[in-house]
Amino acid sequence: MDENKEQSKSALKKAEKAAKMASEKAAKQARKASQASLPAVGGKKTEDIIGITVSKADNFPQWYQEVVLKAEMVEYYQEISGFFVLRPLTMHIWSTIRKWFTNHIEEMGVEETSFPIFLSSKSLEKEKDHVEGFAPELAWVTKAGDKDLDIPVAIRPTSEAVMYPYYSKWIRSHRDLPLRLNQWNSVVRWEAKQTTPFLRTREFLWQEGHTAHLTEALAGKEVLEILELYAGIYEQLLAVPVVRGTKTENEKFAGGYYTTTVEGYIPSNGRGIQGATSHCLGQNFSKMFDITVEDPANKGSHIHVWQNSWGLSTRVIGVMVMVHGDDKGLVLPPRVAKVQTVIVPVGINKNTTPEARKKHEETVDEIRQSLKKAGVRCESDWREGYTPAWKFNDWELKGVPLRIEFGPKDAANGVVTFARRDTGKKGEIPMAEVATQVPELLETIQKDMYNKAEASFREHRLQITKWEEVLPALDSKNVVIIPFCLDCKCEDRIKELTTRAEDTSDVPENQKLPAMGMKSLCIPFDQPEGLVEGETDCLNPECKSKAQKWVMFGRSY
Amino acid sequence: MDENKEQSKSALKKAEKAAKMASEKAAKQARKASQASLPAVGGKKTEDIIGITVSKADNFPQWYQEVVLKAEMVEYYQEISGFFVLRPLTMHIWSTIRKWFTNHIEEMGVEETSFPIFLSSKSLEKEKDHVEGFAPELAWVTKAGDKDLDIPVAIRPTSEAVMYPYYSKWIRSHRDLPLRLNQWNSVVRWEAKQTTPFLRTREFLWQEGHTAHLTEALAGKEVLEILELYAGIYEQLLAVPVVRGTKTENEKFAGGYYTTTVEGYIPSNGRGIQGATSHCLGQNFSKMFDITVEDPANKGSHIHVWQNSWGLSTRVIGVMVMVHGDDKGLVLPPRVAKVQTVIVPVGINKNTTPEARKKHEETVDEIRQSLKKAGVRCESDWREGYTPAWKFNDWELKGVPLRIEFGPKDAANGVVTFARRDTGKKGEIPMAEVATQVPELLETIQKDMYNKAEASFREHRLQITKWEEVLPALDSKNVVIIPFCLDCKCEDRIKELTTRAEDTSDVPENQKLPAMGMKSLCIPFDQPEGLVEGETDCLNPECKSKAQKWVMFGRSY
Repeated sequence: MDENKEQSKSALKKAEKAAKMASEKAAKQARKASQASLPAVGGKKTEDIIGITVSKADNFPQWYQEVVLKAEMVEYYQEISGFFVLRPLTMHIWSTIRKWFTNHIEEMGVEETSFPIFLSSKSLEKEKDHVEGFAPELAWVTKAGDKDLDIPVAIRPTSEAVMYPYYSKWIRSHRDLPLRLNQWNSVVRWEAKQTTPFLRTREFLWQEGHTAHLTEALAGKEVLEILELYAGIYEQLLAVPVVRGTKTENEKFAGGYYTTTVEGYIPSNGRGIQGATSHCLGQNFSKMFDITVEDPANKGSHIHVWQNSWGLSTRVIGVMVMVHGDDKGLVLPPRVAKVQTVIVPVGINKNTTPEARKKHEETVDEIRQSLKKAGVRCESDWREGYTPAWKFNDWELKGVPLRIEFGPKDAANGVVTFARRDTGKKGEIPMAEVATQVPELLETIQKDMYNKAEASFREHRLQITKWEEVLPALDSKNVVIIPFCLDCKCEDRIKELTTRAEDTSDVPENQKLPAMGMKSLCIPFDQPEGLVEGETDCLNPECKSKAQKWVMFGRSY
Repeated sequence: MDENKEQSKSALKKAEKAAKMASEKAAKQARKASQASLPAVGGKKTEDIIGITVSKADNFPQWYQEVVLKAEMVEYYQEISGFFVLRPLTMHIWSTIRKWFTNHIEEMGVEETSFPIFLSSKSLEKEKDHVEGFAPELAWVTKAGDKDLDIPVAIRPTSEAVMYPYYSKWIRSHRDLPLRLNQWNSVVRWEAKQTTPFLRTREFLWQEGHTAHLTEALAGKEVLEILELYAGIYEQLLAVPVVRGTKTENEKFAGGYYTTTVEGYIPSNGRGIQGATSHCLGQNFSKMFDITVEDPANKGSHIHVWQNSWGLSTRVIGVMVMVHGDDKGLVLPPRVAKVQTVIVPVGINKNTTPEARKKHEETVDEIRQSLKKAGVRCESDWREGYTPAWKFNDWELKGVPLRIEFGPKDAANGVVTFARRDTGKKGEIPMAEVATQVPELLETIQKDMYNKAEASFREHRLQITKWEEVLPALDSKNVVIIPFCLDCKCEDRIKELTTRAEDTSDVPENQKLPAMGMKSLCIPFDQPEGLVEGETDCLNPECKSKAQKWVMFGRSY
């Protein structure tokens, strides 16, 4: 036992060192990239080059950085590192998600609220355990004007400690249950780690729902309803497939009872990514904050209420970019695209007579109006001084799902030419059918994008029953589903065993294999066949326990 | 001249002293009130008494405080003073405003954005003049976790200095104009003055629009379009009349070119209140931040862009409460009410058979469903353990515009009984016509509420041409419209001359007259007749200048 522990400790140290080296290197690269904006290519600053300068396959991190900047989704906030400006293209996606989610939770009876941005240091002391995890990332206001505050206040990293004192005040009887509040706001977590637009930023937008129920069953029902809405945001709006499941003890929300999650997958590097989480907090917080009601079934005795909290952040947008984007730039699912269709006039040049030009403008405008009437978000691009080819590239960079090319010849033939952003496929539509065929085509694009991403995730989710197949699977950009005992220490050990600790400083950069070990992503609700309780072993070769569940593991964000 | 100055100085000192005394007293009272929550009445804490304990006419400040608390609009944030929790009833109003305004500005071509919450101290130094006004109220983050930040960062009090460096980056050609961005967020201004829910709080929700245009004319057109939308929010949604106008030099936005405003009026104390402002910033900020484009009409020469900024905050909700509320509590205009109609079952008691009760429940639910179908936000109140009378009071306190009382007798007669919240008027509607008559009735209530408030404002906006009538007019809770020279010093002097400086410590509290002097509220766009340029004198008896405009003055928030 002790020897094992020592071995394990030494492996852990090695793994930690390797991980630290890798993360320091990544941080250094990122610092460099963010300070000089983007690296230089062929003597020209890449930020001055229109279009993406690297391929998604060759240099995924830089590809991502270029796409979110050049497609005008974000701007780095030069003044303070780790912060980003969210531009209209991004905010359109976020607003679409907000409307969709709000409609659904309103139907469930969830109400909107807005709590203050600050936490007092006093109330933080009250529930140390929960806050401990957030403490290193708290931003502290210590001065107002030129005066020091008597008691410093922290900006919320999440609002449990801000809100629950009022739940205690407002919930006086079981008739006040369920209490279901949601707020849309921004939170600040002053990350020390390298930041990445959308995925890890020091401030981010999110919604946080906080609810209280009479029974565990009622709380549990809501946890799953919300999780299904989160899955809907990914699958129906962002065309991104997710796996629904429960987090292991190691990965659940600190202070909660259990955590459900939707997990995504990034094909380019084979990493899993947590999509959004819906937590049952159990009675842990209601005990800390003294939130009780008289038991309606047993007068005189009191029950601590059952609480949930659930949140979804702008991270979803980063996942969408990573899944769908290509070497030309962003690819937007039609349902969240600010501009769904762009009409680029072609065949108009200096030889075109003013009358012919005017007539063509009118025809383009008729098409645009008829598309608008049909509910399509549509623009026409009459910018002067740019060739059609330049405009095609520009709209492709920005991910517009459908381009219509339309010249006087097309007008004469009574057709428009289209090009799909997702596949590049071109075709023709009779002008009279534009208003019916374009909306259908957009829906087809939406579905095709989802199906493509879904197939990719399905193919790279390998069910594995031999330990020696795990690392090769990870190196081939898969996540794995393995029989697992659910023990926390065994999970730590699996991470160590899959971490490459050897020194690879001699290996050329492009031949290096990732050092990162695998973490558990979730216990999928949808359990494969073939696991026999009490018989199947846990896959960790050092583990003597039997497997409890198929668990999805992977390298992850 | 010098003597006049001395006199003026001495009067100013007296006025300042009186104002200071008055404001300190008010602050003391408020501190007391907010610490002990609410004062005691008849040995019982007023917060434990259901319903409002003072009349609006007798004690307006306490009435207001009780209404916003007891109607469950806000909760005082005990942890940090000057902050408030906005509860669902409030957030419904704010969301309604947000949707309405968003739809309108989207049509205008304004796009949504989200800039970081922090300002670096560096960028603050850049435009000292503008920031000077905000400096005493800035909240400074100096620590993250347990580490001191190298450079402290301030939470935005408004976002000019956060955003405009990026306008300089993004606007490269006149083709990038207009650039029109809006964001919904919260800002922090650490007020030293006494805070009041909605009207003055250390954090508040608002929208801030920031736009850039090629010419003064284009910027000016937008300023008025936005102002008209702000007027629409007051008049069409909140049923609150406003006067549109321009601010005087004294009252315009610091650093701007000119400020337009919608001004409201609180009948209970006769004070004016600034409703929302739409500023033309001119070229002041574009010069500071170097935002230029090449002049399309004159190649080679550069123009500084013309900028606007415009904002509307949750303050609007406080104005609405003050204007419409009565001694029973809140009165909500139907268009912004979360619950527009409540059905309270009556005539159901312990003698009612379970079958009869069930049948009645079903009928009530049919009515509720048919109202919901007709687009009415409707609830039925089946809470047990409360009498119908208690429920009536509760819904009246919360301002629900229309109550339907419905018992088995009504069901037998095929009618419902209604009671209007605004007038108390009762009536009957045939059950078959509920779905058509209730929506009409709600619109009638909306219009009647506006008309009543509009008449009150109109009656208390006195056009005055004799100086000696000014103070009596103010004391009778009017605002005044007077011929005015528009000179800044004259405006200061008018404030002094209308401030009561005498010591009134012997006068019984309820016989005291307000000390507060009057400020200019706006130069109304709608100018009355009777002012002859170059002939009519400025109303200030000490002023030797001629009047330029009719200007609205008043005691104000």
